[in-house]
Amino acid sequence: MLITRRERFNAAHRLYRKDWSDEKNMEVFGKCSNPNWHGHNYILYVTVKGDVGPETGFVINLKVLSQIIRTKIIEKIDHKNLNLEVDFMKDKIVSTENIAIAIWEEIEQDILSNGAELHCVKVVETENNFVEYFGN
Amino acid sequence: MLITRRERFNAAHRLYRKDWSDEKNMEVFGKCSNPNWHGHNYILYVTVKGDVGPETGFVINLKVLSQIIRTKIIEKIDHKNLNLEVDFMKDKIVSTENIAIAIWEEIEQDILSNGAELHCVKVVETENNFVEYFGN
Amino acid sequence: MLITRRERFNAAHRLYRKDWSDEKNMEVFGKCSNPNWHGHNYILYVTVKGDVGPETGFVINLKVLSQIIRTKIIEKIDHKNLNLEVDFMKDKIVSTENIAIAIWEEIEQDILSNGAELHCVKVVETENNFVEYFGN
Amino acid sequence: MLITRRERFNAAHRLYRKDWSDEKNMEVFGKCSNPNWHGHNYILYVTVKGDVGPETGFVINLKVLSQIIRTKIIEKIDHKNLNLEVDFMKDKIVSTENIAIAIWEEIEQDILSNGAELHCVKVVETENNFVEYFGN
Amino acid sequence: MLITRRERFNAAHRLYRKDWSDEKNMEVFGKCSNPNWHGHNYILYVTVKGDVGPETGFVINLKVLSQIIRTKIIEKIDHKNLNLEVDFMKDKIVSTENIAIAIWEEIEQDILSNGAELHCVKVVETENNFVEYFGN
Amino acid sequence: MLITRRERFNAAHRLYRKDWSDEKNMEVFGKCSNPNWHGHNYILYVTVKGDVGPETGFVINLKVLSQIIRTKIIEKIDHKNLNLEVDFMKDKIVSTENIAIAIWEEIEQDILSNGAELHCVKVVETENNFVEYFGN
Repeated sequence: MLITRRERFNAAHRLYRKDWSDEKNMEVFGKCSNPNWHGHNYILYVTVKGDVGPETGFVINLKVLSQIIRTKIIEKIDHKNLNLEVDFMKDKIVSTENIAIAIWEEIEQDILSNGAELHCVKVVETENNFVEYFGN
Repeated sequence: MLITRRERFNAAHRLYRKDWSDEKNMEVFGKCSNPNWHGHNYILYVTVKGDVGPETGFVINLKVLSQIIRTKIIEKIDHKNLNLEVDFMKDKIVSTENIAIAIWEEIEQDILSNGAELHCVKVVETENNFVEYFGN
Repeated sequence: MLITRRERFNAAHRLYRKDWSDEKNMEVFGKCSNPNWHGHNYILYVTVKGDVGPETGFVINLKVLSQIIRTKIIEKIDHKNLNLEVDFMKDKIVSTENIAIAIWEEIEQDILSNGAELHCVKVVETENNFVEYFGN
Repeated sequence: MLITRRERFNAAHRLYRKDWSDEKNMEVFGKCSNPNWHGHNYILYVTVKGDVGPETGFVINLKVLSQIIRTKIIEKIDHKNLNLEVDFMKDKIVSTENIAIAIWEEIEQDILSNGAELHCVKVVETENNFVEYFGN
Repeated sequence: MLITRRERFNAAHRLYRKDWSDEKNMEVFGKCSNPNWHGHNYILYVTVKGDVGPETGFVINLKVLSQIIRTKIIEKIDHKNLNLEVDFMKDKIVSTENIAIAIWEEIEQDILSNGAELHCVKVVETENNFVEYFGN
Repeated sequence: MLITRRERFNAAHRLYRKDWSDEKNMEVFGKCSNPNWHGHNYILYVTVKGDVGPETGFVINLKVLSQIIRTKIIEKIDHKNLNLEVDFMKDKIVSTENIAIAIWEEIEQDILSNGAELHCVKVVETENNFVEYFGN
């Protein structure tokens, strides 16, 4: 059984490598490398796997799952600059893939501590683009 | 190959255990344990697995799949009270997880009889919460 | 200039008249008159009209608008039974139309006090049905 | 008859007044005044009014309407910083209201030149917030 | 008070004028003039205006409104070729604008006969394009 | 890590077998066998699997993925008749299942050539029906 909680955050970001010239960054990352930033309404889906507890009928209490996501992720990245202000994105390329991996690492233990297992972190950047990470 | 049919139902429910005090129910289930009920526009996705029939190009005829879901599920739970009026939820905690498991059990055989295999029952309770059950 | 805030609530309700027989209620209101209730994920859109303040660039501060809607409406009807538990629906038929009118009356003054004018209350009951009320 | 074209842009912005202290900006604009920016997937709906041409059955050719919006608006604001890089937002508070007014002014003449009349500019900032501007 | 019912239909169509050359049709209507047809999942919103009946709390019974739309429109155009098979589109350019006008004319009287007034016919052709007709 | 790109196409089609009578086609395929065609706004999701490149933070550059899908698929099927005009659907029943399989075969190599692996082709025919193909 999988259960999924959706949360949202609005943030600025930029795709670029410091060790590349502006031309190289523009060639690879296109308009996403704009030095003055751009941003998105990101949608985050966290999917947790587990057995259904006979006492509650729950895999995990959604209040708990929502609380973990809000404390560990949303409060740190909502209305923020993902390149400049988010500790767990420091020194990383702020691609949707890397955001998903970093979110996984931030919340994996908390979900285990609540008796369930993290199954998937899905990050939707636009209505046309999204990634799903299942751990490694 | 997976094929999915979406159906919807609007229903009232309440999360609670008879053997718990009101305080305990409120503590665990929160406002979802309101004794006077609340309700949702549930969305149900039934996913079926199978080979594509060379004669029809279908895994399963969607008219048949829709008919199974409507007869076995929707007619019994749409505009109903899930705790009081639905035979297959009797004596169960009416969590989204338990709704998905019960729906799986109600339709699994009918899908097998039509030459396909039930793969997933997904129940969406709100735009922020959903579960997916793959059998056991 | 119009500005709109969306909020959501999940509630149980029933369409019926006490002074009608069960048969009459069923004939007019159909399965919506189920005595054991059913429910919806209602979506509420509150639209406010006004000039754009030169100091803030706002018609109304959305934090204020959201606060009014949450305090006056959402806290009273979310995860509630609209027929039994909501003071401003007392002795009314709980149609989507009447919900919209009642919400208008509950928040009209608070929006005026904040320098704007209520323009429309839209209540979405299902993806196929919604009403819009513009006052009278 | 009204006809509407949807276009989208992803941009960074910040709500603040230079002549206010950081504290005052935070008090009024909240986390939207973050000095390091945040961003959105903005959705833009441009609605045009006119008679249906007997020769084409169109109020306006949507290829033309889309072209106007892309040339005059989307190319200038997509993947941009609305405060720093967009000429028609210069020295304005970058509220959704002011974005809608500025877009109106940028495209009004081009739509008139194509035999129709601009009716509404709707800018959706998040799934919970949007504005509609009808000119003055 | 306005109340809206959504219905859907899937149809093939083509934009062209018999009295124009293929080149002229292609120049004006672009790929929409493909002689072998293309198609859409059209979404139809019918909005009705009226007072809220004190007996029912309804502007119009949605079962009645849905029945009118289904009988007069959906049964005639769903899974059909709008150019070849729909009587009320005969000899018209099958633009979204003309579809909306024709639907208005087909259902206006039936809504009046049920004590309400047709306010708007909205036809959504794609997620980027829609028209709204308010009569003349 | 999975990454998904959404693209859309509007097309006409018909479900039928030449070697069946009209009655047999109608019995099996229902109104989808209408000889004058009908159509859909198809939504296509292409999901690609791979490791995240340390240099770019990408599984695959979405500009490349989008380009593959547009060149190999969208340009050939958008605003087309799927039965008559699409080479890779020739002599096939134009079911959603067969469309997904054909799209898989058209793009599998191009994705491999770009260092990633095709994981899933999802084709959404209506809001109620979709298929997912994972290769064989």
